[in-house]
Amino acid sequence: MEGVDHLAHERQKAQFDVEEMKVVWAGSRHALELSDRISRLVASDPAFRKDNRTVLSRKELFKNTLRKAAYAWKRIIELRLTEEEAARLRFYVDEPAFTDLHWGMFVPAIKGQGTDEQQQKWLTLAYKMQIIGCYAQTELGHGSNVQGLETTATFDPKADEFIINSPTLTSSKWWPGGLGKIATHGVIYARLITDGQDHGVHGFIVQLRSLEDHMPLPGITIGDIGMKFGNGAYNTMDNGVLRFDNVRIPRDQMLMRVSQVTREGKYVMSNVPRQLVYGTMVYVRQTIVVDASCALSRAVTIATRYSAVRRQFGSQDGGPETQVIDYKTQQNRLFPLLASAYAFRFVGEWLKWLYTDVTQRLQANDFSTLPEAHACTAGLKSLTTSITADAIEECRKLCGGHGYLCSSGLPELIAVYVPACTYEGDNVVLLLQVARYLMKAVSQLPSGKKPVGTTAYMGRVEYLMQCRSDVQRAEDWLKPNVVLQAFEARAARMSVACAQKLAQFSNSEEGFAELSPILVEASLAHCQLIVVSKFIEKLQQDIPGKGVKEQLEALCSVYALHLLHKHSGDFLSTGTITAKQASLANDQLLSLYSKVRPNAVALVDAFNYTDHYLGSILGRYDGNVYPKLYEEAWKDPLNEYVVPDGFHEYISPMLKQQLRNARL
Amino acid sequence: MEGVDHLAHERQKAQFDVEEMKVVWAGSRHALELSDRISRLVASDPAFRKDNRTVLSRKELFKNTLRKAAYAWKRIIELRLTEEEAARLRFYVDEPAFTDLHWGMFVPAIKGQGTDEQQQKWLTLAYKMQIIGCYAQTELGHGSNVQGLETTATFDPKADEFIINSPTLTSSKWWPGGLGKIATHGVIYARLITDGQDHGVHGFIVQLRSLEDHMPLPGITIGDIGMKFGNGAYNTMDNGVLRFDNVRIPRDQMLMRVSQVTREGKYVMSNVPRQLVYGTMVYVRQTIVVDASCALSRAVTIATRYSAVRRQFGSQDGGPETQVIDYKTQQNRLFPLLASAYAFRFVGEWLKWLYTDVTQRLQANDFSTLPEAHACTAGLKSLTTSITADAIEECRKLCGGHGYLCSSGLPELIAVYVPACTYEGDNVVLLLQVARYLMKAVSQLPSGKKPVGTTAYMGRVEYLMQCRSDVQRAEDWLKPNVVLQAFEARAARMSVACAQKLAQFSNSEEGFAELSPILVEASLAHCQLIVVSKFIEKLQQDIPGKGVKEQLEALCSVYALHLLHKHSGDFLSTGTITAKQASLANDQLLSLYSKVRPNAVALVDAFNYTDHYLGSILGRYDGNVYPKLYEEAWKDPLNEYVVPDGFHEYISPMLKQQLRNARL
Ligand SMILES: Cc1cc2nc3c(=O)[nH]c(=O)nc-3n(C[C@H](O)[C@H](O)[C@H](O)COP(=O)(O)OP(=O)(O)OC[C@H]3O[C@@H](n4cnc5c(N)ncnc54)[C@H](O)[C@@H]3O)c2cc1C
Ligand SMILES: Cc1cc2nc3c(=O)[nH]c(=O)nc-3n(C[C@H](O)[C@H](O)[C@H](O)COP(=O)(O)OP(=O)(O)OC[C@H]3O[C@@H](n4cnc5c(N)ncnc54)[C@H](O)[C@@H]3O)c2cc1C
Ligand SMILES: [Ca+2]
Repeated sequence: MEGVDHLAHERQKAQFDVEEMKVVWAGSRHALELSDRISRLVASDPAFRKDNRTVLSRKELFKNTLRKAAYAWKRIIELRLTEEEAARLRFYVDEPAFTDLHWGMFVPAIKGQGTDEQQQKWLTLAYKMQIIGCYAQTELGHGSNVQGLETTATFDPKADEFIINSPTLTSSKWWPGGLGKIATHGVIYARLITDGQDHGVHGFIVQLRSLEDHMPLPGITIGDIGMKFGNGAYNTMDNGVLRFDNVRIPRDQMLMRVSQVTREGKYVMSNVPRQLVYGTMVYVRQTIVVDASCALSRAVTIATRYSAVRRQFGSQDGGPETQVIDYKTQQNRLFPLLASAYAFRFVGEWLKWLYTDVTQRLQANDFSTLPEAHACTAGLKSLTTSITADAIEECRKLCGGHGYLCSSGLPELIAVYVPACTYEGDNVVLLLQVARYLMKAVSQLPSGKKPVGTTAYMGRVEYLMQCRSDVQRAEDWLKPNVVLQAFEARAARMSVACAQKLAQFSNSEEGFAELSPILVEASLAHCQLIVVSKFIEKLQQDIPGKGVKEQLEALCSVYALHLLHKHSGDFLSTGTITAKQASLANDQLLSLYSKVRPNAVALVDAFNYTDHYLGSILGRYDGNVYPKLYEEAWKDPLNEYVVPDGFHEYISPMLKQQLRNARL
Repeated sequence: MEGVDHLAHERQKAQFDVEEMKVVWAGSRHALELSDRISRLVASDPAFRKDNRTVLSRKELFKNTLRKAAYAWKRIIELRLTEEEAARLRFYVDEPAFTDLHWGMFVPAIKGQGTDEQQQKWLTLAYKMQIIGCYAQTELGHGSNVQGLETTATFDPKADEFIINSPTLTSSKWWPGGLGKIATHGVIYARLITDGQDHGVHGFIVQLRSLEDHMPLPGITIGDIGMKFGNGAYNTMDNGVLRFDNVRIPRDQMLMRVSQVTREGKYVMSNVPRQLVYGTMVYVRQTIVVDASCALSRAVTIATRYSAVRRQFGSQDGGPETQVIDYKTQQNRLFPLLASAYAFRFVGEWLKWLYTDVTQRLQANDFSTLPEAHACTAGLKSLTTSITADAIEECRKLCGGHGYLCSSGLPELIAVYVPACTYEGDNVVLLLQVARYLMKAVSQLPSGKKPVGTTAYMGRVEYLMQCRSDVQRAEDWLKPNVVLQAFEARAARMSVACAQKLAQFSNSEEGFAELSPILVEASLAHCQLIVVSKFIEKLQQDIPGKGVKEQLEALCSVYALHLLHKHSGDFLSTGTITAKQASLANDQLLSLYSKVRPNAVALVDAFNYTDHYLGSILGRYDGNVYPKLYEEAWKDPLNEYVVPDGFHEYISPMLKQQLRNARL
């Protein structure tokens, strides 16, 4: 049956132009062409095969990753790929590797924190991969609290060198990707000490391994920190442990764009503003939001296609059973996730714009929008990764028992994704930062200072505190303004309520600590508002293609209304909407599912993922699930022999009642 | 520092008698003594070592499991352990294996569905493990819908045999544990066909492998279905695929307690009521609820101890930083899970009683309580497993980055636990069954038929529909009756609202399908009420030990109030409580955390888990986390060599710019 499309009948149901939707998802025709071309390139090259990943031992797996990384780089050179193309290629190879940290953290850190000369020297080497870098911030004892790091970099004016040292066990660097087995260099964060004075944490470029024989340099101890969650998954990465025994580096390897140590050992600030560092954080977190939409859309593709293939119950007179995608409970679990994938895509796109905007302003010495941009990227990183992590697991459950098989692709997707909730800022710690920003914004309202950007709605706080939703019929909830006002009013009221409670504490830090659980809820309400509002803004653009806009409108409503239902306690307790209006919202949500249903398969086709990238038998484009699952099973190592290794020693004596004499 | 208790200061803070709490958790002094003795037996025997599990290849892992299973059986025989002790031993070995299905499904199926002679014959063999059985119901194409199974058992009156056959690819048995490589026999579910007539699905005992050389018998194809979620985890189990090519078995291997096929090929029902089958389901699901409390308490132990060890931020003048367990957000995430562990334990204990009660009634031909018992076990299985699966992952996140390491024990715990949401009834399918029961109960109210057991509150529906909570101060929420009434009113109102909407449909099946998302919510509200009410009932018992009852009262309030906050939308939209009351409930919840905080470590100590059973460096009893994490890292296979395998082929040519000529 190879070549038959078992989902053809689903695709025929679609009421919109899938090709145009692909453009919307990709962001532009150019981006679509690029993704399409590069993903096919990867998919068609057997060197990038990944379906054996979950049965390999750690060593085989790791070696295999090194091979793919080298081969990818070779292809990038041979095909003279642009930077953009090369990044896409690494993306579609879809295997965490040291190169992620080299390109994603080491290079940006030097770009952001290195002087022009430092960039000239080190980036030239890094761009050609003549050195391989990692990003070593976290220690065994310190992650979230970067200011508490213990590694020291003590300036020795006699030698014009820094001495890098790990004074305690907890100061061991712990987690940096690519460090464990591969990186030749690292940006190492350490407390700068000059003349007995501690200047806090700064970045240093430190060579870790010999460029000849790859052995750690004298005074340096490095290893891998061991197995992580899942088979395959993130175990392709060599997260590492690193200790320094008074290792010396030249003074010019401190990253000196913002502050410097002079030949005489004086610590001086440059005229480059410190805030620049936040610009880099905005950049990195924005990429994480985009990644969330990728991971989520991938899981949703698998669950949607399989839900259309899977039939269970409801057979009348021996006819075919009901496709599980037709069950309303299945729709109620799945379609909001489909809508979320689109929502995260659009907010990610907007963040890309925001980053460009902030960067341009920074260059013109305008820092005014930076705190807001920083708070909103922190919040959106937290929101999108938390939801995506849960959603992938929900997609696994939506596939019933078969979702538990590695061949469904979902276990690896979960295991590789979940740490996104922790790295680049623990999600709860980030929401607390957003809360601080919000409380500051509220406290400044009386001063007349206009809140900017995503907090602009706070400027209408008086109206939002007392407005009432005028929804009377379920369809009223389809109006963007109605939805927007409800989300704005809820967010504003929650922030104001927190601020009022906070004001009752004489010590505001103590108050903040005591109230942190509700502050986190207010932050979340604010972040959800951002996502909803950016989705609505997207729909105000001109979107070509038959039916495309209509589909997106339906998804936007599903996204907003499912949140409203999930958090109805917020909306009701703040008096933003009435119980009747909440119930109408849910009625509208359930009836929207019928609009989404015929388009569901086409809406995931629009992500344009190859079967290679999806890596899932359940999510196959052609829906030919059962024969392929069956085929795949036999490849398991346990099936190499009919009678398993261990039968004669352990099982046979058991069956024969001879265990007493068996040596075990 | 071996031997130092880093958590001693935490243990000193406890305000209750931990030893007495251990008795409460275990259920009785006898149960505690048993658990304590057997868990130490397992922990002290190096043969049961499990810390290497996540780095083993599938074949090594599996062989290792066979060894442990055989060794455990040998010890059971040598030490003449009772059935109860043997079950505990398997529990503490803590490694899924074919024996789970043999004892947990194969034996109970024969007990429940076999005639006396069949039990005599097969159980005698099974009890000695002269045969090893599995439970083969699910097929590639059918899981939830058991009635749709395709395997056939056609009676051949000439030979007095059944012919077992797999007519399609989708009829292949798929998933049964122990089947893939080990089971010699199985209870196989197949459509019974006599004389061309299909009598639906029945169970048959089928020998699968030779008792001599373990080869599959003629006509039988068996294999393992391949890797599942996680490393280690459930990959110790040989879930299998099985196909029959017209395999003949004697007539007396149909399980004939409820219905029979005579020598002449006549299908007849025995006088044993069909409902007995439900009794077995009540039994199996009750064990799953108890297992949920075990898995959850284990994860909570790890997260609680590590949260007391981990310090982050808040250092004043270089003093020690704040223990993360002191952050209110951490408490708000962790303490409700701690409370849930206790709540699930007590509802599990009650279910054990319920099963005994139902069994006694069945023996006296009283079926009256069976449907209610069935619905409530189905619902509680669904509720407790869904919450536990999410909670283990939340505990992992509560441990920050280090929770992602296998050495934290949490990844394996998650991976091994999540399928509990799917097997023994998909959790959503089960809640829909509860909803059917509830809708029936509501529809029968006007008839005056008194609802029984856990639905008894529906008898007071008139009152519950209009009552108002009289909470005025936060402390009012500590009163059990106040809490109970709120949960009863919410559950009753949600069920009644569903019933009213349902009544608007002319076709009630269609209505049920359309409304299924809100029906599921009503079911959940009902199940939460059961858990809350059983916790409250537990506290009405006499509970000895200093401070023990006070602690449990606090946990009961935390459990109920966190649910109330999480589902405040339900409580508010049904008008059960006011916004002000909801806010007071949350105030009370947050202030309860301060009461729990000093007792947190002692409350998890009361679970009495050995370090072996916990299998977590972060959760070590002595809190000696960092040195042990550091030690453990070096054991990873990647650390066998300093320069990794693959360096010369792949990394060196990259660094030396010689990739172009490299063969990859
Ligand atoms: C897969 C992976 C890859 C990584 N890669 C790198 C890398 O390349 N380079 C690198 O330097 N690091 C890396 N890290 C480390 C990562 O950045 C840290 O794990 C992360 O910053 C979280 O810090 P933590 O682990 O110390 O968590 P902790 O801060 O210890 O968190 C533990 C708990 O405490 C809570 N908590 C902490 N502080 C507060 C507070 N103030 N208020 C309330 N609650 C609080 C958290 O919410 C969490 O629940 C990686 C981690 C992982 C898992
Ligand atoms: C680890 C593991 C061990 C197992 N061990 C055994 C074993 O020993 N023996 C054995 O026989 N089986 C075993 N099974 C199989 C298990 O019993 C089935 O997977 C389970 O019954 C769920 O059925 P399914 O996989 O067909 O899910 P499906 O029914 O296909 O579920 C897919 C989706 O459809 C939804 N759905 C299905 N029906 C409805 C409906 N009517 N209304 C609304 N939604 C619906 C579900 O909620 C789910 O989201 C095992 C499974 C696992 C994962
Ligand atoms: Ca989850």
